Amino acid sequence: MLGSNRYGKSGIRLVRVDRSAPRHVLVDLTVDVWLEGEFDDAYVSGDNRAVLRTDTMRGTVFALAGDGPVGELEAFGLRLVGHFIQTVPSASLATVELVAEPWARIEVGGAEHDHAFTLAGGGRHTARVTRLGTDDRVVAGVTDLVVLKTAGSAFEGFFRDGFTTLEDTGERVLATAVSAGWRYRDTAVDWSGAFERARRALVESFATHDDSNSLQHTLYAMGEELLEACPEVEEVRMVMPNRHHLLVDLEPYGKRNDGGVFVATDRPFGVIEGTVVRPGASAAGRAWG
Amino acid sequence: MLGSNRYGKSGIRLVRVDRSAPRHVLVDLTVDVWLEGEFDDAYVSGDNRAVLRTDTMRGTVFALAGDGPVGELEAFGLRLVGHFIQTVPSASLATVELVAEPWARIEVGGAEHDHAFTLAGGGRHTARVTRLGTDDRVVAGVTDLVVLKTAGSAFEGFFRDGFTTLEDTGERVLATAVSAGWRYRDTAVDWSGAFERARRALVESFATHDDSNSLQHTLYAMGEELLEACPEVEEVRMVMPNRHHLLVDLEPYGKRNDGGVFVATDRPFGVIEGTVVRPGASAAGRAWG
Amino acid sequence: MLGSNRYGKSGIRLVRVDRSAPRHVLVDLTVDVWLEGEFDDAYVSGDNRAVLRTDTMRGTVFALAGDGPVGELEAFGLRLVGHFIQTVPSASLATVELVAEPWARIEVGGAEHDHAFTLAGGGRHTARVTRLGTDDRVVAGVTDLVVLKTAGSAFEGFFRDGFTTLEDTGERVLATAVSAGWRYRDTAVDWSGAFERARRALVESFATHDDSNSLQHTLYAMGEELLEACPEVEEVRMVMPNRHHLLVDLEPYGKRNDGGVFVATDRPFGVIEGTVVRPGASAAGRAWG
Amino acid sequence: MLGSNRYGKSGIRLVRVDRSAPRHVLVDLTVDVWLEGEFDDAYVSGDNRAVLRTDTMRGTVFALAGDGPVGELEAFGLRLVGHFIQTVPSASLATVELVAEPWARIEVGGAEHDHAFTLAGGGRHTARVTRLGTDDRVVAGVTDLVVLKTAGSAFEGFFRDGFTTLEDTGERVLATAVSAGWRYRDTAVDWSGAFERARRALVESFATHDDSNSLQHTLYAMGEELLEACPEVEEVRMVMPNRHHLLVDLEPYGKRNDGGVFVATDRPFGVIEGTVVRPGASAAGRAWG
Repeated sequence: MLGSNRYGKSGIRLVRVDRSAPRHVLVDLTVDVWLEGEFDDAYVSGDNRAVLRTDTMRGTVFALAGDGPVGELEAFGLRLVGHFIQTVPSASLATVELVAEPWARIEVGGAEHDHAFTLAGGGRHTARVTRLGTDDRVVAGVTDLVVLKTAGSAFEGFFRDGFTTLEDTGERVLATAVSAGWRYRDTAVDWSGAFERARRALVESFATHDDSNSLQHTLYAMGEELLEACPEVEEVRMVMPNRHHLLVDLEPYGKRNDGGVFVATDRPFGVIEGTVVRPGASAAGRAWG
Repeated sequence: MLGSNRYGKSGIRLVRVDRSAPRHVLVDLTVDVWLEGEFDDAYVSGDNRAVLRTDTMRGTVFALAGDGPVGELEAFGLRLVGHFIQTVPSASLATVELVAEPWARIEVGGAEHDHAFTLAGGGRHTARVTRLGTDDRVVAGVTDLVVLKTAGSAFEGFFRDGFTTLEDTGERVLATAVSAGWRYRDTAVDWSGAFERARRALVESFATHDDSNSLQHTLYAMGEELLEACPEVEEVRMVMPNRHHLLVDLEPYGKRNDGGVFVATDRPFGVIEGTVVRPGASAAGRAWG
Repeated sequence: MLGSNRYGKSGIRLVRVDRSAPRHVLVDLTVDVWLEGEFDDAYVSGDNRAVLRTDTMRGTVFALAGDGPVGELEAFGLRLVGHFIQTVPSASLATVELVAEPWARIEVGGAEHDHAFTLAGGGRHTARVTRLGTDDRVVAGVTDLVVLKTAGSAFEGFFRDGFTTLEDTGERVLATAVSAGWRYRDTAVDWSGAFERARRALVESFATHDDSNSLQHTLYAMGEELLEACPEVEEVRMVMPNRHHLLVDLEPYGKRNDGGVFVATDRPFGVIEGTVVRPGASAAGRAWG
Repeated sequence: MLGSNRYGKSGIRLVRVDRSAPRHVLVDLTVDVWLEGEFDDAYVSGDNRAVLRTDTMRGTVFALAGDGPVGELEAFGLRLVGHFIQTVPSASLATVELVAEPWARIEVGGAEHDHAFTLAGGGRHTARVTRLGTDDRVVAGVTDLVVLKTAGSAFEGFFRDGFTTLEDTGERVLATAVSAGWRYRDTAVDWSGAFERARRALVESFATHDDSNSLQHTLYAMGEELLEACPEVEEVRMVMPNRHHLLVDLEPYGKRNDGGVFVATDRPFGVIEGTVVRPGASAAGRAWG
């Protein structure tokens, strides 16, 4: 018996250049498309009559990009899910996920260049756009936003069992690669403006949350600040892996660690996940998948 | 307002060698641990009194491995989730995910060596074990199981819209990296025996499903065969990315493609997901997360 | 002033299926092409008249694959470098590097399937083929050959300075991912036969070198055994990163480590490189790059 | 017979925080150490008496970091190679490679924060420092410097053979991830100042080289500009993989590509390598390996 199922196309690499003005505009996206609906016959009996090829999903992304500037991620995602739901009779839910490469203009002699770019830091802008029937939902976000602080972070007073060997840490390096997604109430949003406010709220609250008792504690503070900065947001979900920095014991080398010599470790790593919701927020529906 | 949340430790790299007999036994695991429960105070007010450190999760994996041979993934996972639920008062759900490296004995002169190993193919054995209160659940699986067939696979008669440009394909290369997880009815299972039956069912049905009309079609056939081979399994979930092989047009080079010259492409790629459930299967609870 | 330079195409993904018999033959290669020669004008003055496009390098790989079965890596590489040197007047040195995916036939009911395959372990077969003028050179090799032994390996009596803190280890886990390349004397070689002998020599000598004093020691023993097994080989070069396995101190958990509980670490890792040369070996020329 | 050989430690992850002033200083390095010399006995007879453990190389990096601020990469590398050559009698050549994570201060309310950082773009600063006997050499560089331009780049008039199918391109997207290393004449250098001048020369010349006929052409222009900006540099070596952007044919979708809809492809990709040397430059010795 066939249970839940979906299919789609991943990793569609669209680069759109707008050269209509001397100052070229560059949008560089990786797009994933997913469909759910009445596709059971393809699985059970091998009948493909309801199935839109995944190659056509790819082609659709490029075709719609050919209509003109793709503009904001969120808006382009909405055009795509609308197209898929309108075009594919068997599809009840269409999902489009987009990730943008963070290109910044190269500065030459102090001025931004018109058509030369370099990859910047600060994380990638993401969007997850769904249409379920006629219900459009937008979750914007940021991923690979790597931040670190060298003060203002402790981890003390935790639960201890027989296998707990570490002591309290009054001062440490706190580092993480933030992945966050925030759900908008509706689609009447200034996407770029809201994104910038949200991103800044995350980064600044990470920097200024100076009585951090844990990554959990900082995560919640960041979520609260984002909700405050963005009244159009109902809910924010964050995944924050801990990039551990361990003090190195220098005594075997006849030296004293002044508190500033660390080894950064890859594995294992802690991961903190949490959601901060605005009281009275609307139901999420299928916005998150 | 804090919504759903969890935290844990990822990437715990445990290698357990049993040298009690001349024929050494090697178990090589990557373990992830997750806890859910009453941890709100850590997020909201920075009160860590309920929080088991993630470093203690790591230590626990090694400590329990010190008690003796770790044995089968599923059994070791059950010991771990049992320990966490018993030890951490605030935890209501404990999840342990395990992935095993597929070591095989080196053959020397036709005989298996006692203490020398090489990494084999055929995918990695996985397990996802949860305890919710007193309810133990086990999902076993396989990941990175890469398979390919050069005949017996078509893709025809699909839905066409205005952006569909490809024609029917009567014969093609079908390739995928199978990730599958199957949920056991209870925990009274011969874990290794069931795993081997399940894995063989997946691989052999992929090979012999010779009237494949799509990857969806093959996925369903594989799930059905697995349920038939493993009466102890209630449900199987599969994710199968399509590793596309495109026929190369050799005409510009003055040659004819005899149907056997392909370019393997990385991105974009189709992804097919599906669940095959035994009629009358028990509810999954939190087994899948 | 322009100094040394070269250019080429990387990552050409050729899959060649031979369906001329019921038992299909599958060759899955990643090919890199490099040219050196008189290409200075392209760099210095932007004059492209001497430059073969890298897209043409790609096309050439597929075009020659269209002539019939590609056969052995080494032979296909020789055809390619011959073609490039003959075709491109400015090229004095052509290099082709090939890596083969290790596909194995799926077994169904104990018999190898005719047209279904799964990725095996045991490392990837590589070849590096060069033509300098009329001088053909072939280096075959293996990469990602991961091996591990749980006995027969020590590390003792090493040099100590003031920062040396570890003690001798009489018994340890020795693990590495072997990358090896061996240079053939000429091109009159049974490529597949020699490859199998060489690979087996590496794997078996790793397994049976039971008085290993270090990874260096084992590397040399492996190289010696390969030269003995393959009289057609002049020289073998090996890179062997140490996949460290550290004994876990279980005392803080109130347990004793019986010598079998390890943590596998990613970084940092030791790397051992070495060459074993047959006395009286011919000069390597540009065989290694 | 043992031929050339070396060994070392890779991936030493040192993070050094200097909290001596309110404005904390953060240095985040990945360090590799290599030794060459009289280590034959370890390989051939398993005699380790000359061998410095790779674990001691790791410890040495942390121990020297404990002496105070590590300062500039190049200076820290010089201290390390000096230490190894002085300490290890068998070592004739010591090499230290360093890569720095590009942390930038988080801005809060327009001002740089004292102790909160985010990963920036613009590539990573690298250094390769060697001591051969008493001869110190420094190569600084940059890696992962991703740049792209949407105008000013053509590829025309190239060599054509029978397998050349593409036409001239008068206007295209040119993108690459620059890896460059530049060799200093001696060690009396303002490391940070020279690095900034060199990096800026690379980025600005990429942006302003507006009659680019090829990636080779641009590479050479970048090298020339770097030598002009940095009189202390003798030679620069660059590796520039081509990040291809292909115009998408939109005609099958009933649309016209206005020249701005591209697909970015991963594999295969062209790679251009080249060296630009100052006339009369000193010999490189073992500076490059």
